[in-house]
Amino acid sequence: MSRSILMLPGDGIGPEIVAEAEKVLRKINEQFGLELHFESALVGGAAIDETDTPLPDDTLDKARKADAILLGAVGGPQWDKRPMASRPEKGLLGLRSNLELFANLRPAILYPQLASASSLKPEVVSGLDIMIVRELTGGIYFGQPRGVRELESGERQGYNTYAYTESEIRRIGRVAFEAAQQRGKKLCSVDKANVLEVTVLWREIMEDLRREYPDVELSHMYVDNAAMQLVRAPKQFDVIVTGNMFGDILSDEAAMLTGSIGMLPSASLNSEKQGMYEPCHGSAPDIAGKGIANPLATILSGAMMLRYSLGEEKAAEAIEAAVSKVLDQGLRTADIMSADGRKVSTREMGDAVLAAL
Amino acid sequence: MSRSILMLPGDGIGPEIVAEAEKVLRKINEQFGLELHFESALVGGAAIDETDTPLPDDTLDKARKADAILLGAVGGPQWDKRPMASRPEKGLLGLRSNLELFANLRPAILYPQLASASSLKPEVVSGLDIMIVRELTGGIYFGQPRGVRELESGERQGYNTYAYTESEIRRIGRVAFEAAQQRGKKLCSVDKANVLEVTVLWREIMEDLRREYPDVELSHMYVDNAAMQLVRAPKQFDVIVTGNMFGDILSDEAAMLTGSIGMLPSASLNSEKQGMYEPCHGSAPDIAGKGIANPLATILSGAMMLRYSLGEEKAAEAIEAAVSKVLDQGLRTADIMSADGRKVSTREMGDAVLAAL
Ligand SMILES: CC(C)[C@H](C(=O)O)[C@@H](O)C(=O)O
Ligand SMILES: CC(C)[C@H](C(=O)O)[C@@H](O)C(=O)O
Repeated sequence: MSRSILMLPGDGIGPEIVAEAEKVLRKINEQFGLELHFESALVGGAAIDETDTPLPDDTLDKARKADAILLGAVGGPQWDKRPMASRPEKGLLGLRSNLELFANLRPAILYPQLASASSLKPEVVSGLDIMIVRELTGGIYFGQPRGVRELESGERQGYNTYAYTESEIRRIGRVAFEAAQQRGKKLCSVDKANVLEVTVLWREIMEDLRREYPDVELSHMYVDNAAMQLVRAPKQFDVIVTGNMFGDILSDEAAMLTGSIGMLPSASLNSEKQGMYEPCHGSAPDIAGKGIANPLATILSGAMMLRYSLGEEKAAEAIEAAVSKVLDQGLRTADIMSADGRKVSTREMGDAVLAAL
Repeated sequence: MSRSILMLPGDGIGPEIVAEAEKVLRKINEQFGLELHFESALVGGAAIDETDTPLPDDTLDKARKADAILLGAVGGPQWDKRPMASRPEKGLLGLRSNLELFANLRPAILYPQLASASSLKPEVVSGLDIMIVRELTGGIYFGQPRGVRELESGERQGYNTYAYTESEIRRIGRVAFEAAQQRGKKLCSVDKANVLEVTVLWREIMEDLRREYPDVELSHMYVDNAAMQLVRAPKQFDVIVTGNMFGDILSDEAAMLTGSIGMLPSASLNSEKQGMYEPCHGSAPDIAGKGIANPLATILSGAMMLRYSLGEEKAAEAIEAAVSKVLDQGLRTADIMSADGRKVSTREMGDAVLAAL
């Protein structure tokens, strides 16, 4: 059974880190006889430069046909002045919406080997293991109407729409409840139901679902309080479920609690478990091309891909074990460097994982 | 010149902490001959219970006439099932919008005496002093249309509108630039201009204003990155300006970095410098009536009131010095208690500040 993987290097450090992840996946492919077939395509700024659009038809075609996608990152200052509709980010958002990748899983895990990298006290974050489930194809990211209009007074007004339907909420809720069932059986739904009507509906649907998952303990928290609690006592959380915008903010905050955002993978899935996998960090244009970026988040995204879209749990675990081994060996890219580590380049880190497989 | 202060104790711990702040303000009134005149009124759940509405006309009348307002907090579980329009929060939101208190100033300051209370490493937060300027009467909190509608498919959709006009952005921008001028001359404007059109306009207007304040260094940051940077390296910030919803989230996150949210005051001002002053923390229904809440954030809100609305800088400093003194004495309410502190009740803390004046 041959499966096709689409590689989308994108912008900034994207090509460097995706190259390392591809090396690792090719080796795993041989070792486990997975019959993976690799293709690649343009997205984001790289696609704009070649084809004048952030999501060329060819890329979307290939993405639809692929069993899974591995993305580096998109965006950079050279495209920041472009109109919204033709920015690199639209490539990413277009993939998410066209493939209906509504379920974004973002783990925030503290690697024991990197505990000292966190800006939080060790006792507050040691053993941290949170899963954030973010809705990814609805909410204010995609709500209509949107734009900038001229009012009668002559001044301009910018506006966006934050909207969710019952079924959109229900399907992301189910993913979150199921994730909680596989983990610590605690789910915290984050909203702003004391102010925003759309999140009153969100809370109501989450409450409805509670009956279907009696083994999961559901709680609700306002987003401002969640932002505080993540700093105060992050280990109180197991799975967090929230909308697109709040999820964007809280998942980045949670990732940073670990101090090693260069380590964190993510998965974006649709209802057929087709998925796009990418590191939680961005395109880091300031260090692009220097060969110093950390490829581990992308390599670990490859592991998530094997697990969630390809059903190859053993192969996923092999990658994760190899990553753990290189950390034990003290190998560190610049972003996770510490006094007792040995500093390596992007390529050296990829090679070390390869060797550890 | 007699000035009138409206006290709005509100719900939960509100009455306990406002009582202590009132004691302090009355003493300052005598000491400095300020001719302050105190009134009080109902708001939030307390008003619902008495009058069936969270913002009675009498309260709004008194608020309009007052030179400044001191609010405790609103909200609690007993009112959580009420429809949105008649919840305690509407009392607070109604005051903000009716008095056009568009400029919300939320300092996040680490008190050296309480440095160990933070969940962050001392080197990351020592000396922390950020001012968050949050727009308070626009954005998605007040945007129209909003509600829950039935779609043709028969399912319901919740929706809210995130909107800002140029002039709304400009007036909060000016407050922020001016705050930066008084402080470290650095302003970071937080938006999501890579996704939301309304914040593209936000960014454009902030850029416009830059020319009027050449001594202030303006930067822009996406909200997800800001949530990360606050955890990673909060001391990079001086003044942050952002919209209502992002400000709600980021100001709570920033407050929690200090570990002592029970210490942080806030001011909400209109263009006549009339203001409402309140602690950053909420109504804490779980500890209401126990006499253990920390009154210092409310007492310090009183100091902000003297400074911003009444122009009594010396009196404000006297309160701040008294608070600093009781902290030096080792007095601690439960929320900021540490091994070497002496635990005191709400009232004892208020009395200690009084004695230190
Ligand atoms: C690049 C941007 C559009 C994107 C988002 O906001 O979703 C990113 O921040 C993310 O979280 O994947
Ligand atoms: C109580 C609530 C409506 C309020 C808000 O969201 O503005 C509170 O969280 C605050 O920050 O003052």
